[in-house]
Amino acid sequence: MCAETGAPFPPSLPTLQQLNPAHARLCLGVERFCRQELALAPGSRLVLALSGGADSTALALLMHLLAPRLKLPLFALCVDHQLRPESAEDARHVEALCRRLGIPCRVRRQDVAACAKAWGCGLEDAGRRVRYALLEEERQAGNADWIVLGHHAGDLAEDVLLRLTRGAGWPGLAGMAAKDERRRVLRPLLFTDPEALRGLLRTRGIVWREDASNQDRTFRRNRLRLEVLPLLRRENPALDRSIVTLHQLGEMDGDFWEKLLDAALGAHPWQEVESDDGPGLLLPRALLAALHPAARLRLYVRALRALGETSGAQGQARGATLLALDEALGQGRGNTRFQLPGGMEATLRRGSITFKKSIHSPRSRARPAPVTPSTSKP
Amino acid sequence: MCAETGAPFPPSLPTLQQLNPAHARLCLGVERFCRQELALAPGSRLVLALSGGADSTALALLMHLLAPRLKLPLFALCVDHQLRPESAEDARHVEALCRRLGIPCRVRRQDVAACAKAWGCGLEDAGRRVRYALLEEERQAGNADWIVLGHHAGDLAEDVLLRLTRGAGWPGLAGMAAKDERRRVLRPLLFTDPEALRGLLRTRGIVWREDASNQDRTFRRNRLRLEVLPLLRRENPALDRSIVTLHQLGEMDGDFWEKLLDAALGAHPWQEVESDDGPGLLLPRALLAALHPAARLRLYVRALRALGETSGAQGQARGATLLALDEALGQGRGNTRFQLPGGMEATLRRGSITFKKSIHSPRSRARPAPVTPSTSKP
Repeated sequence: MCAETGAPFPPSLPTLQQLNPAHARLCLGVERFCRQELALAPGSRLVLALSGGADSTALALLMHLLAPRLKLPLFALCVDHQLRPESAEDARHVEALCRRLGIPCRVRRQDVAACAKAWGCGLEDAGRRVRYALLEEERQAGNADWIVLGHHAGDLAEDVLLRLTRGAGWPGLAGMAAKDERRRVLRPLLFTDPEALRGLLRTRGIVWREDASNQDRTFRRNRLRLEVLPLLRRENPALDRSIVTLHQLGEMDGDFWEKLLDAALGAHPWQEVESDDGPGLLLPRALLAALHPAARLRLYVRALRALGETSGAQGQARGATLLALDEALGQGRGNTRFQLPGGMEATLRRGSITFKKSIHSPRSRARPAPVTPSTSKP
Repeated sequence: MCAETGAPFPPSLPTLQQLNPAHARLCLGVERFCRQELALAPGSRLVLALSGGADSTALALLMHLLAPRLKLPLFALCVDHQLRPESAEDARHVEALCRRLGIPCRVRRQDVAACAKAWGCGLEDAGRRVRYALLEEERQAGNADWIVLGHHAGDLAEDVLLRLTRGAGWPGLAGMAAKDERRRVLRPLLFTDPEALRGLLRTRGIVWREDASNQDRTFRRNRLRLEVLPLLRRENPALDRSIVTLHQLGEMDGDFWEKLLDAALGAHPWQEVESDDGPGLLLPRALLAALHPAARLRLYVRALRALGETSGAQGQARGATLLALDEALGQGRGNTRFQLPGGMEATLRRGSITFKKSIHSPRSRARPAPVTPSTSKP
């Protein structure tokens, strides 16, 4: 299905001054978010991730309007997943949009279905991995600072529900980051109501392309968005706002735990250790003994991430295992090994804990092949 | 509907030794929970809250089996809400059960519908208030230590979802406490699978009464349990286990924040202040300046609770307002007043904050009448 009708774009694109008061407020709200929450420095080079859908079309328009005010050089990448017959058409739509907005745009194609098959994972997972890998390649090739994604408050609510379902801990439960330094990702629309974005596009006569796969209930994310979230919003029409508040508390807590662990590790550093199985991290007894259990749990997660563990669908199993590990530490148990999801393990020995990749896990051997996509610049 | 058939109880009640291995494990798991998580001291006097439903019937049986091992004197209270024609029959069922188990039991009747009308609140809310008030009266009259409730892991999942919907913060989002010192409440079955409880009752031929109002979708809690939770469990059949893990993390974090605030308040105490509007709490500048924003947010909640604010359905509005208050503090704003839900207000002045009951709120004037129930001991 495609919402596109007649001429792809209205005769003239709006300036910020031509927006009605509600849309000007929306635009200035995003500007404030970029300045305050994201602390986006003037001159930052941004790669916009555009799909042709409503969210990324609104992202392109808003960043186009704000770029002169925030002094942001913009580039765009459209990744054609080749999963739907109309995907090439979507990419051409993005190119046309970017021409109108004066944003340099590249399209890169990747057979995501083939990747999913080769990697033994689902289409959603493969699509996400391909997309992020290509965006990161584009960011580095263009010497850009940030990848910019169009996720909004509806996506945030969906993500929190998905994380609750998967068994995430806290503050991970508070949803995707607005600013992810490690992955160089920004989400300037994360607190914005999606209906307001569509309203802006409609009012300005800017069309977008509907991705039929967003209605496909074989994907968990779609089932949560289409079946569960409406039931929760019926109970609380302000659900998305309250999840934004929860997210802000999560960001605060994340910052708190990072700083607390920085200080603890400054006093008692962890030690990098090498074994036949590869690198590991030893958390010394003095470090562990100095921390409250709640802080130790976050230390374990930090160590696992430093070793390359990606928190995925296994949050639940990891959380329960980390609690069991910490309980064993508290009981003074010795020489105990814990298998963790994501191909990791922890060994408890005389009050210290060593994390490393597990030689017992199939995941530590079978890795996805690197992405080597074809590239086009039509 | 009533599951009761024929003789109300089997000819002989089981002893712990007569249980099959799975049910013995269930029983010993509850014992371990009582000893470790609840740190239940031998000799503690317990008032069991019994309704005649499956959960509280299983609670009565399990506590009866564990009482000799844990040296726990047991008493029971059944509150007849008089909302359904069969409620008197439910109460008689509880009395018969308690006679068989050798647990002294009282029944107290209260016209909850009339209370709801008088207090201007919903039936669910009125029922909960009446129940807790009568249980607390019974606890004090019997010189008991704890009120014991039959909430299980399914109720915990339901409560977490309810709190997410209402906009709770963290660690409140992690659900009802297993041990609530302030309200003197214990929930020994909180990590137990409800199906295991029903299985125990069925195997031993112990009947329970079904409360038809549990199917009534005019209550939000029932809608979440009957409509939303099954959809989430379809995505993750281990959802309830992962929510137990989330709850454990929440308990840890709650303990962490309590201790951190104890230490901060030890160094820079808050000050009780009196005004024409009643008592308030002044958080001095030195206290606020010494804390990370994440800790200040918890300090605000602690101050509000100390002033008698009950965190209820307004979590969302409170969270957003507390974030705005803290942002204003960070910006050095002076003489700003924030209205909070629950009839409270906060005033920011020269880097300090005073919380007190708001004279502008209707809720500070209109209070529910005290509960004065009729009592029977048939």
